[in-house]
Amino acid sequence: MGGTSEAIHRAEKTGAGFIAVRNSTHFGAAANYAMMALEHDMIGIAMTNTVAGVVAPGSTKPAVGTNPLAVAVPAGKKPPFVLDMATSVVAGGKLEIARREGTSIPEGWAIDKEGKPITDPTKRVRSGGGLLPLGGTPTLGSYKGFGLGVLVDILCGVLSGSSASILWKITPETRGNAGDHFFGALRIDSFLPVENFKKSMDEMIEAFEALPTLPGVKKVYAAGGYEAEIEKDRKANGIPLNPKVIEELQELAKELDIEYDL
Amino acid sequence: MGGTSEAIHRAEKTGAGFIAVRNSTHFGAAANYAMMALEHDMIGIAMTNTVAGVVAPGSTKPAVGTNPLAVAVPAGKKPPFVLDMATSVVAGGKLEIARREGTSIPEGWAIDKEGKPITDPTKRVRSGGGLLPLGGTPTLGSYKGFGLGVLVDILCGVLSGSSASILWKITPETRGNAGDHFFGALRIDSFLPVENFKKSMDEMIEAFEALPTLPGVKKVYAAGGYEAEIEKDRKANGIPLNPKVIEELQELAKELDIEYDL
Repeated sequence: MGGTSEAIHRAEKTGAGFIAVRNSTHFGAAANYAMMALEHDMIGIAMTNTVAGVVAPGSTKPAVGTNPLAVAVPAGKKPPFVLDMATSVVAGGKLEIARREGTSIPEGWAIDKEGKPITDPTKRVRSGGGLLPLGGTPTLGSYKGFGLGVLVDILCGVLSGSSASILWKITPETRGNAGDHFFGALRIDSFLPVENFKKSMDEMIEAFEALPTLPGVKKVYAAGGYEAEIEKDRKANGIPLNPKVIEELQELAKELDIEYDL
Repeated sequence: MGGTSEAIHRAEKTGAGFIAVRNSTHFGAAANYAMMALEHDMIGIAMTNTVAGVVAPGSTKPAVGTNPLAVAVPAGKKPPFVLDMATSVVAGGKLEIARREGTSIPEGWAIDKEGKPITDPTKRVRSGGGLLPLGGTPTLGSYKGFGLGVLVDILCGVLSGSSASILWKITPETRGNAGDHFFGALRIDSFLPVENFKKSMDEMIEAFEALPTLPGVKKVYAAGGYEAEIEKDRKANGIPLNPKVIEELQELAKELDIEYDL
């Protein structure tokens, strides 16, 4: 994405660079853009607003998108810190997975238009209501998840000259596919020598990994550590696919009269 | 705090300014520093790490501090957007309030060293365990709250040349009172005309305030909106104090042989 490259380019000159992009579309995984900063020894930031599907605390009408934000920070010997999180309890994709697998979803992910928990992932679109902001309930800090979602909307939508997604006029074509973005890069060597920084990152990550764990938990990871292990495994052993997805791909291949070869 | 002023000063020149501060102490409410940017038509950022008291998902030993982050964004006619949040489910102060009021705390705020919920606010210090990261449980996204807490530790502790708080050597003197900080300022007019930005902020905030609400909820606020109303009320009618706090102040006055006059 040109926005990240431009943010990196500007950070090279002044230490910090930020770019807001308006009237774009779904940009895929936010982490991919944030991680572009890593090879430049910078901290990378990427976020996007999305069509509103997350309710505000005290309401059951969607007010913000799942509005993910990603931050990538280089380490030394350890994998980089890569946080990539929807500002809702879960991203919409988790409901899609449950729908495909035919499983129910836990209470605390989504509510219907009366404010009651939704556990049937096929129900949400029809029922009104929406996903819950991170925190879930006011007692457990849902104003924080909502606040982070609004912050992403401000940086992506308002600052780019588009608008917060609550004000978008949604058509069937744009539904689920619209977005403004915000990209940033911070040059580490404008704060301290990169080698010192990376050593300190490694020490922190190693301290997390050495934490005692609850029964059944292998170890504590810093964000991105588990994904780095999975990436290694997938590169060696391939990517497992859900049978439903394979079925859908096979049908699509038939429909388009091309060979299915996976 | 000189860090914020310096960040604002640098943003005036280049559009964005960031300052990391090491080996400081408890800096009070993060929002106060972030809000310094408002009169300059900038977005202000302030965060601090604190002594580790929040457990990582899957562990019961504190790994990060409550590590609050604050972002302040100017609006036009509406009060500014001011998000000020601990990255744990609740800040330590909420347990302190419950302790003073002699009330229990809800399940989901803190766990003991076996991972069981703590509901007695006087118990935590003795029991091991700690506060839970925002999200609470892995199913409800606690890796996000933990990730945000670690991010604050990286920007405040690692980037300033101090370290993540998990590596601090804590003495009785520094316990609960140490911190590194990170301050930032973004100049709005390097993205778009300030008047357009503020108008768009007002429209977003008004759309949130017009949302339908659940029974018992007066209205939906953007972050800072409720606090702006409370501030107005307190300026007119004074600040209510907890009887326990008044008692403590009276005892302190007696002890120091000064007049208690509130």
